[in-house]
Amino acid sequence: MSGFFIGIDVGGTNLKAGLTDETGRLLAAARRPLDFRGAEAFAADLADLAAEVLSAAGAAPGDAEGVGIGLPGAVSGGEVLYTTNIPLERTDLAALFRRRLDLPVLLGNDADCAAVGEYFQGAGRGLRDFVVLTLGTGLGAGIILDGRLRGGESSSEAGHMVLHAGGEPCPCGRRGCWEQYASATALIRRTEAAMSAHPESALRRLAEEAGGVDGRTPFLAAEAGDETALAVCRAYVEELAEGTASLINILRPEAVAFGGGVAGAPEHLLLEPLRRRIGELCFSRHGGRATRILRAELGNDAGVIGAALLGRVI
Amino acid sequence: MSGFFIGIDVGGTNLKAGLTDETGRLLAAARRPLDFRGAEAFAADLADLAAEVLSAAGAAPGDAEGVGIGLPGAVSGGEVLYTTNIPLERTDLAALFRRRLDLPVLLGNDADCAAVGEYFQGAGRGLRDFVVLTLGTGLGAGIILDGRLRGGESSSEAGHMVLHAGGEPCPCGRRGCWEQYASATALIRRTEAAMSAHPESALRRLAEEAGGVDGRTPFLAAEAGDETALAVCRAYVEELAEGTASLINILRPEAVAFGGGVAGAPEHLLLEPLRRRIGELCFSRHGGRATRILRAELGNDAGVIGAALLGRVI
Repeated sequence: MSGFFIGIDVGGTNLKAGLTDETGRLLAAARRPLDFRGAEAFAADLADLAAEVLSAAGAAPGDAEGVGIGLPGAVSGGEVLYTTNIPLERTDLAALFRRRLDLPVLLGNDADCAAVGEYFQGAGRGLRDFVVLTLGTGLGAGIILDGRLRGGESSSEAGHMVLHAGGEPCPCGRRGCWEQYASATALIRRTEAAMSAHPESALRRLAEEAGGVDGRTPFLAAEAGDETALAVCRAYVEELAEGTASLINILRPEAVAFGGGVAGAPEHLLLEPLRRRIGELCFSRHGGRATRILRAELGNDAGVIGAALLGRVI
Repeated sequence: MSGFFIGIDVGGTNLKAGLTDETGRLLAAARRPLDFRGAEAFAADLADLAAEVLSAAGAAPGDAEGVGIGLPGAVSGGEVLYTTNIPLERTDLAALFRRRLDLPVLLGNDADCAAVGEYFQGAGRGLRDFVVLTLGTGLGAGIILDGRLRGGESSSEAGHMVLHAGGEPCPCGRRGCWEQYASATALIRRTEAAMSAHPESALRRLAEEAGGVDGRTPFLAAEAGDETALAVCRAYVEELAEGTASLINILRPEAVAFGGGVAGAPEHLLLEPLRRRIGELCFSRHGGRATRILRAELGNDAGVIGAALLGRVI
């Protein structure tokens, strides 16, 4: 046997692994809590998870083409430059992994892996030029052009395109980055500000019931007809549309898919108005192909599948 | 003989043609004024120019691999979708050309052709990921990633990335497009506004001597120590740096080269401060490669050379 691919997604609280075939079909999966006890122990945990999905499918290490590992951070070759959730700065994770399990190892940014997963098994199937925007704590972008990932050291930081020059300060050092207006964090901030300004809004009650505001709160309240929440959703769609239209003008992809929890909002409150507004904003008056606006399809599996198939697009 | 490539650059007032070898070395050149008398006559003029550079090098049509034509506008396959200088909407220019001279024809946007020319023979030699920004009437972008041009229907309109959301109206229909702040036209507008606000500035005298403001005026006055002009140049560099840093964050190219008349400004007033500011603004705190900021090298030849070699990067 051969032709198996192992993908591992290093999340904020969990490690998830999957075994796929060459098309990214998930054949086995495993997970364990992230319990960081140093780089070597961490690499050993990853190797154990890889061995676990292999044995779950009745396969041996020799049956696997390699392992892809997706992390929230930046990578360069087999080295982790930094991650946002664990102290792995300037660590040769590939070498540490291979001490435990000697397979080819590729590292990738988590937003890149999500895009690769969607490209092979989700919203991007059959496309060549494809972008996935992940609306989460930050605004992650994974960009595949002409069937190749803009990854590794040239991984995209599209969330740090400035949309409001001189606007909100961003941890990256600039002011007015798109991420400060279009991430789930930005939506939550906007919702909280609206709640303070409009204490009569249904937002307050919904937030109290849920134990706090999250990316669903404004959409739930808007569904219930709350005007304050509707205004929050509209303003958020506008920010998302402006940045997406800029990205489309630059890259002209065949499709952009939105992932992350916020992308699960009701179609008529998010994707529909987003499509309409992006259509108005894009530079396409003179013909040329229009970019399709999609919802990501794979949810949490995208990262694992994409990590497994990193080698096919790098 | 074979291995010749023909490039034609359709400019605002002139048609320029060149014959190159496969590396883009210019072996012969010809030009004539643009005298538009309908699509068929236009195609015949282009074919005549192509024949002229062939015969100047002692070559026959059969010695040429093909013809590339660069136009200010949008193309799709062999069709011109529109141009900004001549009425060629939805015209199958390749077919018209081939009635006169039966060679493979490729069409390209002029900013794309400039980037391809610089890629083979200018500032981008030896690179794989390379962007050329042309500072002219508009802000043209040509993007080469992994050795392939983002061209044709997916040609970049990076000038229509919004930098100042809600800002200056742009003919593209949006507000706050980068082009409205960073093109040569924008620089001239800013210079004229500064002249009105500061009639004591040396700008006025320089403009009168030159018969008007152009993209060199503020740099000439700044060289002479004029404070108003210095402020204009600094503000322009800031706009250019902000948008370029966004583009670098998205694409992570190895280098960005600036072309167009404005790019010829004194190094210490344009490229030096631009490099410093872009370095501050880019998302690179955690390592990864830095993007080099260069001046385009080929001037007006870039378009002809790039048109000739379009087929090598598409």
